[in-house]
Amino acid sequence: MNRPQLQKVIGGMQKAGLKQLLVTSPMSIRYLTGRYTHPGERLIALLITDDGGATLVANALFAMKAPEGARLVEYDDTQPASEALSACVKPGVLGVDKDFTCRFALPLMESRPDVRLRLGSGCVDRARMIKTEEELKCMAESSRKNDEALARTMERLRPGMTENEVAGLYRQAAKDLGAQGESFDALICFGPNCAEPHHATDDTISRPGDSAILDVGLIYAGYCSDMTRTVFLSCATDEQKRVYDVVKRANAAGQAAVRPGVKLRDVDRAARAVIEEAGYGRYFIHRTGHGIGLEVHEFPDVSQTSEEVCTPGMVFSVEPGVYLPGRFGVRVEDLVAVTPEGGVPLNALARDERII
Amino acid sequence: MNRPQLQKVIGGMQKAGLKQLLVTSPMSIRYLTGRYTHPGERLIALLITDDGGATLVANALFAMKAPEGARLVEYDDTQPASEALSACVKPGVLGVDKDFTCRFALPLMESRPDVRLRLGSGCVDRARMIKTEEELKCMAESSRKNDEALARTMERLRPGMTENEVAGLYRQAAKDLGAQGESFDALICFGPNCAEPHHATDDTISRPGDSAILDVGLIYAGYCSDMTRTVFLSCATDEQKRVYDVVKRANAAGQAAVRPGVKLRDVDRAARAVIEEAGYGRYFIHRTGHGIGLEVHEFPDVSQTSEEVCTPGMVFSVEPGVYLPGRFGVRVEDLVAVTPEGGVPLNALARDERII
Repeated sequence: MNRPQLQKVIGGMQKAGLKQLLVTSPMSIRYLTGRYTHPGERLIALLITDDGGATLVANALFAMKAPEGARLVEYDDTQPASEALSACVKPGVLGVDKDFTCRFALPLMESRPDVRLRLGSGCVDRARMIKTEEELKCMAESSRKNDEALARTMERLRPGMTENEVAGLYRQAAKDLGAQGESFDALICFGPNCAEPHHATDDTISRPGDSAILDVGLIYAGYCSDMTRTVFLSCATDEQKRVYDVVKRANAAGQAAVRPGVKLRDVDRAARAVIEEAGYGRYFIHRTGHGIGLEVHEFPDVSQTSEEVCTPGMVFSVEPGVYLPGRFGVRVEDLVAVTPEGGVPLNALARDERII
Repeated sequence: MNRPQLQKVIGGMQKAGLKQLLVTSPMSIRYLTGRYTHPGERLIALLITDDGGATLVANALFAMKAPEGARLVEYDDTQPASEALSACVKPGVLGVDKDFTCRFALPLMESRPDVRLRLGSGCVDRARMIKTEEELKCMAESSRKNDEALARTMERLRPGMTENEVAGLYRQAAKDLGAQGESFDALICFGPNCAEPHHATDDTISRPGDSAILDVGLIYAGYCSDMTRTVFLSCATDEQKRVYDVVKRANAAGQAAVRPGVKLRDVDRAARAVIEEAGYGRYFIHRTGHGIGLEVHEFPDVSQTSEEVCTPGMVFSVEPGVYLPGRFGVRVEDLVAVTPEGGVPLNALARDERII
């Protein structure tokens, strides 16, 4: 087990009044044990007790070793995983992962009416939220690679290419730079697709006058990066230039608001205010950002309702956008690390208006 | 809504005594509505009642339209999704998806003590298990493409390549053939890695005398394929040849056992018996196969305990294997469709022993 990480989680359990916590997110198990296993439809679970005890429940097929200082309980495909689980938990409240599925949760509740499930993964999520120095180095390096991969993609981007082709350029650049993979499928949008928050990269061909949103991230040293740049193809209208300037200033204002003690809803507010003052408030239809680390979406939430407070070690995105339905969209996104002195951007790629 | 699909699911609900069913698997929602949305950490849910009513609960960001004949209930990021859900369900038993997560399930149970959750996704999984003629055509085409992509990969495979390089060859071949993607990351194993059931493709370099397991699948026309071939590099020992022959015969015996009315555990038995008779029974450490369709793992389970009966329209894998720890492994996998006349393999790529 990674002892400092385990201690952080146990501290969270004590605050939350949890004597036992079932961790089932594979990435949280990796955070705590140093080992990643993708269980597919099978169960893998790490049961932690507030006295520092840990039991890993895993399918024998995973051929896992007991993490140092932990017990290993194996089951196989001929017996329900929930039985193995059921035999390990103690009566009373059991904290469970937000991603724990009913496939295992309902049989567990059925067989153990003396156990009461409560959402408890916040204890792990809040531990993961504050990165160590070593994790911060990995994240900075991942974002440096992402800057470079996106710069190479933009060098090769030409009007007439499809969204999928540009996504392919990025994927190749990331691979050439030694990335272990993408943190998410590159989201490339041209023209009106830029205004659809849930557009999936497709074979749309770019045309002169289009905005192009390039939202990309890679995994390096185990950590995710995530950034967005918006460029214009061949030319840009005055309105496009105006919206770009507003979003760029909103990004800068959001970043400038970051310092220890500030609520994340006030970071959201700082970015949102710039867009609202320019009259585009109702076209900024999502939160300002999200935490990131081993996974691309982690705690904290940078939203209008987030009561969380900026704390050194946090890394999150600042990604305001304006989306004009049927016409175009602009988003500018950087990752920011909170340090005692304030926010430090992990991305250095220029944010200036750019016509390709 | 896809009416015939919905009727099949309602038939299953009636059999299971469910008056309401909450479908949250994005692929099951696609099966029922024709539209795929990836909700990420947000909630998308289709609530079906046994009188044919349907309500889609979705985040406003998804910008969804109400499916024909269904009601749309939207929520946004400033309110908990479970509240929107809570307002839609009726008192009594509520069938839920096996993949429904505690993030939404526990708040729902908290706010609606008059609702009792029960696993209910079997109703959708069992409808999806029996493919229509049109679906079978798509699956056959997907497997034909997979045969061709793997054939091209094997043509280019040379001793000295890494597992990742071979996975890259397959990925490129699948792309060249028009695949929408892979159904899973190509699993390429050399030598002793072949005997590790949970090995992840890495930079291991192939050496003369290695077995090479190539387990690959692609998505075409929306449907998944999945197949495995094992080859030997430069040469093969007598033992490797013997094990290969055993596994090939086990695959053939499993396929030959498929006909309507036969229990799937007897298909497993037929394949397993060949391996046991050859003295390798304890080295065949997993089930014989799994259903496949819109997703790579679906109903039915082809295992030692499966009471399910072969029914025309089912498609599943037959993939026996022998894994000798620290030395080598062999697996031969085809997809088989159940027809009134018996099992029809969807893969045609040769299964003969092959040294590359």
